[in-house]
Amino acid sequence: MNYLTMPKESLKELQTSLKVQYKALQDAHLSLNMSRGKPGDEQLALVMGMLTCLKTREDLISEDGTDCRNYGLIDGIIEARRLIADLTGTKPENVFIGGNASLNLMYNMVSNAWIYGVNGATPWSKQGKIRFLCPVPGYDRHFRITESFGIEMISIPMSPTGPDMDLVEEYVNHDPSVKGIWCVPKYSNPDGYTYSDETVRRFGALHPAAEDFRIFWDNAYLIHHLDFEDKDELLNIHDALKENGNEDLVYEFVSTSKIVMPGAGICALITSEHNRAEILKLMNAQMICFDKVNQMRHVKFFGSVSGIEAHMRKHAEILKPRFEICFEAFKELGEAGIATWTQPKGGYFISLYTPEGCARRTVQLCKEAGVQLTGAGAAFPYGRDPKDSHIRIAPTYPSSEDLKKACDVLIVCAKLAAIEKLLA
Amino acid sequence: MNYLTMPKESLKELQTSLKVQYKALQDAHLSLNMSRGKPGDEQLALVMGMLTCLKTREDLISEDGTDCRNYGLIDGIIEARRLIADLTGTKPENVFIGGNASLNLMYNMVSNAWIYGVNGATPWSKQGKIRFLCPVPGYDRHFRITESFGIEMISIPMSPTGPDMDLVEEYVNHDPSVKGIWCVPKYSNPDGYTYSDETVRRFGALHPAAEDFRIFWDNAYLIHHLDFEDKDELLNIHDALKENGNEDLVYEFVSTSKIVMPGAGICALITSEHNRAEILKLMNAQMICFDKVNQMRHVKFFGSVSGIEAHMRKHAEILKPRFEICFEAFKELGEAGIATWTQPKGGYFISLYTPEGCARRTVQLCKEAGVQLTGAGAAFPYGRDPKDSHIRIAPTYPSSEDLKKACDVLIVCAKLAAIEKLLA
Repeated sequence: MNYLTMPKESLKELQTSLKVQYKALQDAHLSLNMSRGKPGDEQLALVMGMLTCLKTREDLISEDGTDCRNYGLIDGIIEARRLIADLTGTKPENVFIGGNASLNLMYNMVSNAWIYGVNGATPWSKQGKIRFLCPVPGYDRHFRITESFGIEMISIPMSPTGPDMDLVEEYVNHDPSVKGIWCVPKYSNPDGYTYSDETVRRFGALHPAAEDFRIFWDNAYLIHHLDFEDKDELLNIHDALKENGNEDLVYEFVSTSKIVMPGAGICALITSEHNRAEILKLMNAQMICFDKVNQMRHVKFFGSVSGIEAHMRKHAEILKPRFEICFEAFKELGEAGIATWTQPKGGYFISLYTPEGCARRTVQLCKEAGVQLTGAGAAFPYGRDPKDSHIRIAPTYPSSEDLKKACDVLIVCAKLAAIEKLLA
Repeated sequence: MNYLTMPKESLKELQTSLKVQYKALQDAHLSLNMSRGKPGDEQLALVMGMLTCLKTREDLISEDGTDCRNYGLIDGIIEARRLIADLTGTKPENVFIGGNASLNLMYNMVSNAWIYGVNGATPWSKQGKIRFLCPVPGYDRHFRITESFGIEMISIPMSPTGPDMDLVEEYVNHDPSVKGIWCVPKYSNPDGYTYSDETVRRFGALHPAAEDFRIFWDNAYLIHHLDFEDKDELLNIHDALKENGNEDLVYEFVSTSKIVMPGAGICALITSEHNRAEILKLMNAQMICFDKVNQMRHVKFFGSVSGIEAHMRKHAEILKPRFEICFEAFKELGEAGIATWTQPKGGYFISLYTPEGCARRTVQLCKEAGVQLTGAGAAFPYGRDPKDSHIRIAPTYPSSEDLKKACDVLIVCAKLAAIEKLLA
């Protein structure tokens, strides 16, 4: 029953019956939220033990004698640096542990480049118009950081293998005003794509026109598989860069917000030893130390990367059915020819693509029926989706039951929006 | 036995015997540290219960229903905002709870003003040469922040009633390039002075030439008395400003680093509702939320300001004897006419003033005998003490026994440095 080939009269009949359905949904006074990538209650329950895993003074003494309860070690305790190094296939010498939010660390790296310049280069603030590449759809919070500095954002189309690398190379290797690119290389936000080996190798082989170009590699979902037996693999960017003598090009960011409790985790910056030394100099003027007690809490609770993996397998068990509820529901839109969607093997999001000009209307209809979605356009620089067709679906936070209800609403709204368009 | 009036021959004899003492101290291979204001082990032991005070999901649900274990509330949970408001004599509407370090929040406010401008004014970075007033001696970390931006620092002499307010008014009210002043208004770092009521009132009545001038009011030691029966009182800066319609002029900072565990506490910015709204807008691009679990940990552990006060009374019991060890030891230098010092009723530091040109040498001699002091000059902008006479003493971290030993070394070194100068 493809809407696109349906006679107008049938569409109108369908619309009438959908409007009745919509009215009934509105009358149910739902209040459901699929707008942000938040872990749900079942996931949070798995880390309650972390709250009480540190008890004695001995628990808080690092192997090098550092008392986690006092000032010191701006770059973190060695145990935490080793844990993050193991998780990312790097060395503790490459790891700087930050506070509770990788987004803030990203902001900090942009603001350091803006104010002080990257490793001795002219500060970005004094170089006139500068630009960032933004694979789209992407993470709204990344774009908001660059927008806050007035950095011009250039959209780069995403594909299942990653950003359009021809375009990336064209810009990065020839335009010295291009200073950075935002990447979520694994289970990308919002498509859920993982960059192919070739894409990562091409990142590793970039020859930037700007000496102060950096890849902002937000590896937010590095171990966030939906199925540990059927998962994506991402090539190590540091290795790919090293092959080309390009180690300084990347700032990799990771966070435990979606491993433990969002806002109560730790984050880290992983980069070359040379970059790390430069960053340490700057950070020493901005900070005394981050929360080492919380770092040790992670170390004691998980023990090692195996501990984290065992824990994330439990997340997968909880989250995979949530994603499947959406995939199943979306089939109805697929059959009607009015949507396509991505089918990620990990991460926190699904991209749902409506016909052109229908995303904003769909989101609005959902809102008026009590289902909050991410604002249409949010995944694009300046909040503008040129086709108005992308909707970011965040299926993790609601319970399965609520998620089913929310999908029911979404399906009706997407159909109504598409028919409105077709009849217009 | 005043050295200043002693015949040269006697001074030389004294020097010889002091050198023998110094050699013996060196041979003891001490390793003592009086360099930074760190709580000691006994203080830290008092908050171990905080590590396990949150156990259940219910413990983590804020009174407004917010789950502290998930994203949200960039300005903090209401319970924490109320606790800080009560502690500072303000309202929750004035409080923004930050991360684990007030220094970072101060850096953040300077960098926001630098990049975006204060409440819509031209960014500091685009105003040519700008300046900050720096009461001296002061906190080295404050000066390092302004130095990192290339902001020119103007020294303002401190007195037991606070900074020289004639000079402050002269600069602030007439020079639009003066954008800020660093203040530690209570138990100042390093003198331990508390600003008098008149000083605070004069701050409240400032009429800055610059529309984007701000007072950086680092109330780091607001409840850090050495004796709760004999403590300093500081007038409320917000009240003093309000009387003059000047509410927007101040950013007050507090931190629990020296109440709980340094680096694992929370910090806060207290300011007008108008400023707070402007800051929220900026912070929303830089951060998702701070660690609400740790905020709730504070709320549960202390309950209220009375709980904090009861706890800080125990700190006072531990710290007062430490300060008295120093005061007692310094008497010998006073009798020799080669030192004066401050006698704070709270905070973490004592200022020791040697004869001109002797501070650096004293610190060096101490270092060579295994006693680490804060670098001479550290309490002045650009690390330059024009008189080379100030030494910051931090008596809190070593045990009483170690502190006595460290003072013994310091006394011998201060004497040797003074005699060298007198004989030169």
